[in-house]
Amino acid sequence: MSESVKLRPAFKWRNGALCEAADRLAVEEPLEIRLAGRRFTLTMRTPGHDEELAAGFLMAEGFVNARGELGEIRRLRDSKGAPDPNAIDVILNVPAAGLRERMQRNFVVSSSCGICGKTSIEAIERRIAPITSTAAIAPPALLRLPAMMREAQAVFAATGGLHAAALFALESMDTPTLIVLREDVGRHNAVDKVVGFALARDLLPLARHALMVSGRLSFEIVQKAAAAGVPILCAVSAPSSLAVELADDLGMTLVGFLREPNFNIYTHPERIVA
Amino acid sequence: MSESVKLRPAFKWRNGALCEAADRLAVEEPLEIRLAGRRFTLTMRTPGHDEELAAGFLMAEGFVNARGELGEIRRLRDSKGAPDPNAIDVILNVPAAGLRERMQRNFVVSSSCGICGKTSIEAIERRIAPITSTAAIAPPALLRLPAMMREAQAVFAATGGLHAAALFALESMDTPTLIVLREDVGRHNAVDKVVGFALARDLLPLARHALMVSGRLSFEIVQKAAAAGVPILCAVSAPSSLAVELADDLGMTLVGFLREPNFNIYTHPERIVA
Repeated sequence: MSESVKLRPAFKWRNGALCEAADRLAVEEPLEIRLAGRRFTLTMRTPGHDEELAAGFLMAEGFVNARGELGEIRRLRDSKGAPDPNAIDVILNVPAAGLRERMQRNFVVSSSCGICGKTSIEAIERRIAPITSTAAIAPPALLRLPAMMREAQAVFAATGGLHAAALFALESMDTPTLIVLREDVGRHNAVDKVVGFALARDLLPLARHALMVSGRLSFEIVQKAAAAGVPILCAVSAPSSLAVELADDLGMTLVGFLREPNFNIYTHPERIVA
Repeated sequence: MSESVKLRPAFKWRNGALCEAADRLAVEEPLEIRLAGRRFTLTMRTPGHDEELAAGFLMAEGFVNARGELGEIRRLRDSKGAPDPNAIDVILNVPAAGLRERMQRNFVVSSSCGICGKTSIEAIERRIAPITSTAAIAPPALLRLPAMMREAQAVFAATGGLHAAALFALESMDTPTLIVLREDVGRHNAVDKVVGFALARDLLPLARHALMVSGRLSFEIVQKAAAAGVPILCAVSAPSSLAVELADDLGMTLVGFLREPNFNIYTHPERIVA
């Protein structure tokens, strides 16, 4: 199997029953890109073609304008000399003064969210409280969430260009109630807006709630939902490998490919009660 | 019409002919978030619920842990006192020492790509050379690109979780040839990998090429393609308002909703030759 795909056990709801079956997940891992040994940027990516990724990124950012400006790209090594799969170092054939000027022009201080390295991932896991909520939802109610979300998605219907995040209250496991829906060109922004809505109304932690997103589930979305205490996170599409690992560690129930009449449960299936 | 949607003229290929018709685009604009007046982060977002977005973002990043820590959120004003639609200032009820500690823990220096403010957008337009390539493609050839991309997408077929970017050479306007396809959990990473591939082989600028992406077209994707000189950029889904504006300014042909038997042309239709 390619390094881009990871097999993981999942529970699949098919024909009205749960069965256990392995699922293929797209791998998501952080890549640290250094410039001449200096920490430069961190990006969440699928492993493979890392040298191309670094070169293309530096090109888009205006650090490299031609092939000749790109020197050596080599993998960092740990203290035992083993290559680090998630860190590379780029040497540019650009005069130091020119490089300084390019860095000043192109860089701003930005959040580490979604672009975090391994240390930050461990820090995130330490910072966020484990989710211990006993909230639960029944499969028929879970399967209704996508339609409830779509009905509220006025802008998506108009443009096809917006991601959505919807928060549902689980007063009972059979009757989810839509609390708020937000849309944005950025999936993470839609989740931020929902959490901001809940924060302003003092609803946090969202211990008796399910959050649903329209697209795929990345590490960053799980992080944002977990910070708000969400016990059940659902998506219309696939989760990444790191999304599943973080949800597992934090005690969150992760549901993917939620499309009537099927869904997959990736972590903590005890909150889906048939 | 909501501030989340913008009407723009487009050319639509329907039943084998181009017709002009307005299309609704999801609005993408930069939002600058300040902390007590200090520039903090910039994010590309759809306008609306900006206060929620800022609050949720600060929550996810660990700057705010409860409603009481969130003070006033106000809009910045320009020199004439008019509110800035794309900049807000957040006052936190957190002791200064605690805030400093949270900033050091959570922040890294990162690239401005995709999180740029207005000034950076103007800087990007100044930095990237206008695209003057006379490359062209015929509608039947254009309509074949999605199938050619899907056939090469082995990992997507396996996981449903990866974005793809594919580069095609246009030796003639009727016979596009797939040069390379790259996949990644991040759409922008897939594009970086393709550009990095081309850079290493000294193919830049990509003046006789078309680039196709599997998802939606954001400002950032247009920026990356333009830096590599791509004259024709296509996507299976919708472009954002800012993606269309940047492509228009830079002379790039932008095609969206490319799905047999239809497509939409948003900018520079002269390269699609029936």
